[in-house]
Amino acid sequence: MIKTPYLLFLGDAPDDLAAKVARGIRDWRPDNCVGQIRMAGCQADVGLPDMTLAEAKAAGAKTVVVGVANRGGVISAAWKKVLVMALEEGFDLASGLHNLLRDETDLAAVAKATGRALHDVRVPDTAYPIANGIKRTGKRCLAVGTDCSVGKMYTGLAMDQEMMARGLKSSFRATGQTGILITGNGVPLDAVVADFMAGAVEWLTPDNDDDHWDHIEGQGSLFHVSYSGVTMALIHGGQPDALILSHEPTRSHMRGLPGYDLPGLEALRDMALPLAQIANPACAVAGISVNTAAMAEDEALTYLAEVETRMGLPTVDPFRQGAGRLVDALTVL
Amino acid sequence: MIKTPYLLFLGDAPDDLAAKVARGIRDWRPDNCVGQIRMAGCQADVGLPDMTLAEAKAAGAKTVVVGVANRGGVISAAWKKVLVMALEEGFDLASGLHNLLRDETDLAAVAKATGRALHDVRVPDTAYPIANGIKRTGKRCLAVGTDCSVGKMYTGLAMDQEMMARGLKSSFRATGQTGILITGNGVPLDAVVADFMAGAVEWLTPDNDDDHWDHIEGQGSLFHVSYSGVTMALIHGGQPDALILSHEPTRSHMRGLPGYDLPGLEALRDMALPLAQIANPACAVAGISVNTAAMAEDEALTYLAEVETRMGLPTVDPFRQGAGRLVDALTVL
Repeated sequence: MIKTPYLLFLGDAPDDLAAKVARGIRDWRPDNCVGQIRMAGCQADVGLPDMTLAEAKAAGAKTVVVGVANRGGVISAAWKKVLVMALEEGFDLASGLHNLLRDETDLAAVAKATGRALHDVRVPDTAYPIANGIKRTGKRCLAVGTDCSVGKMYTGLAMDQEMMARGLKSSFRATGQTGILITGNGVPLDAVVADFMAGAVEWLTPDNDDDHWDHIEGQGSLFHVSYSGVTMALIHGGQPDALILSHEPTRSHMRGLPGYDLPGLEALRDMALPLAQIANPACAVAGISVNTAAMAEDEALTYLAEVETRMGLPTVDPFRQGAGRLVDALTVL
Repeated sequence: MIKTPYLLFLGDAPDDLAAKVARGIRDWRPDNCVGQIRMAGCQADVGLPDMTLAEAKAAGAKTVVVGVANRGGVISAAWKKVLVMALEEGFDLASGLHNLLRDETDLAAVAKATGRALHDVRVPDTAYPIANGIKRTGKRCLAVGTDCSVGKMYTGLAMDQEMMARGLKSSFRATGQTGILITGNGVPLDAVVADFMAGAVEWLTPDNDDDHWDHIEGQGSLFHVSYSGVTMALIHGGQPDALILSHEPTRSHMRGLPGYDLPGLEALRDMALPLAQIANPACAVAGISVNTAAMAEDEALTYLAEVETRMGLPTVDPFRQGAGRLVDALTVL
């Protein structure tokens, strides 16, 4: 559990893309952020007040979150200067970088001396159980994709936000490092040891009120041979009541696998639903989420209407249209 | 890679069941064993010559393999005395125990001082790659089960042995600790980090001669919600040309999951084959392996004949009947 609110560290980001983690936190959990801290030459801006460490401290911030990618996989001396000062000022640090904060001897030493926490969210910090498959109370929704990186996290966050706006009971359950930084907790599922993957998902989505929905962040794809085992553990550990099919229609092959075509939405439905019904016989496909970022507005709307007719399921791009119709579909399940 | 041949350590095993790992090594790789070493009170016997450490050394043994389960999860002082002496006599040690040899400070210190290796086969010792899905040369066979512990390892070992006896090119590829101790190498798949599971299976079953078969040790089941992610990684990382469906017909529920019924063989076929064809469109179901240990001979034969007719696939219990008909089915693929 990472202490909120955050001060977002943008470092010397060369552009906004390099600060996309900070942008995600700002967009989805603005209440978790008091401001941003930028170094000389920083070209990114997530639209929060610029603050010094002292100003952020006065504003109540508890954790400095590294919201920027590091170039060349090195945590630079210039970053270190700010991060060490943050520890000394009483902030915890949190990061999703491949290079772990804890492996930097200077940061580790200062954190120890000051009693501050270093959160490396790529590394599991919990001894997860083996999954027991016992049916849990409450409802769960999982987005499954025709491929990796087709908008599953965005879909879950948008549905959670929409349910909150309607006053419904809802939680986003993060399973990747960006999601964990956004919400302050979760399971870095791709770093969990194989035997405990499904158990980690059960742990993440415990018993809840009958009318509460967990929106579980999806990972990988049943059709992506590198990561399908992780997807499988989400389907069986999550025991979803509802699946959302996620797709990106302009991709020419599976991400990182040039020899592999993307499946159609029908193939995804026919593969994922029977697998999900092993853990939850009542599971249904509730809707379809399409990432149409690469399409013009009219082309996108035509495509969405075509898919909706063909599949007989509410079909939206939550970025263009919001997640309202997907939430409508859940609330009648 | 564990150095062979082995001296099998049976310790103070209270019965033969406690020494089943040693029994497996003896049954499947007799050429890997020079003898057994037993302590006072040992009630197990795998039928190899009893040897002192000095005798085993003279007979060429390189590694003492712990072939017995430890009671109460403790490596006892009595065991330690023998294991320390083995290191001092120049043997490596290998173990599949939950408690790691390397975590015993005395064993670790003596191994370091003597320059001997401690092989804890439950722990991966390789940095596996992310799977790339590229089609490999050679052929691969994978047993997939309706449940865990239905005879998948036995089936793979029996098919490998049969192919070797026929002078065909064949390898058993171990993915669990018993299989690794039997063959001296492999991947402890249930202990691999999620992102690297499928890549570990690719690594384990590399390019080979066109007429060479890998028999990949199966794990878990697509229908077992605790471990299905591991099974999925085997199917996609292994990119099998042939699946063998494995079943135990007398079980009343999924192993460890009282609320879950076993699927039928048809359901297993219909789930596993389309998933396997994502990685290898040419994959086919070659045959069925049934563990009929809990049935009388005539009951078993009647059951096998019924399944063979119903499924239209060669159906055997390799323990009762050998794996010849399953190998026949592969060689026509």
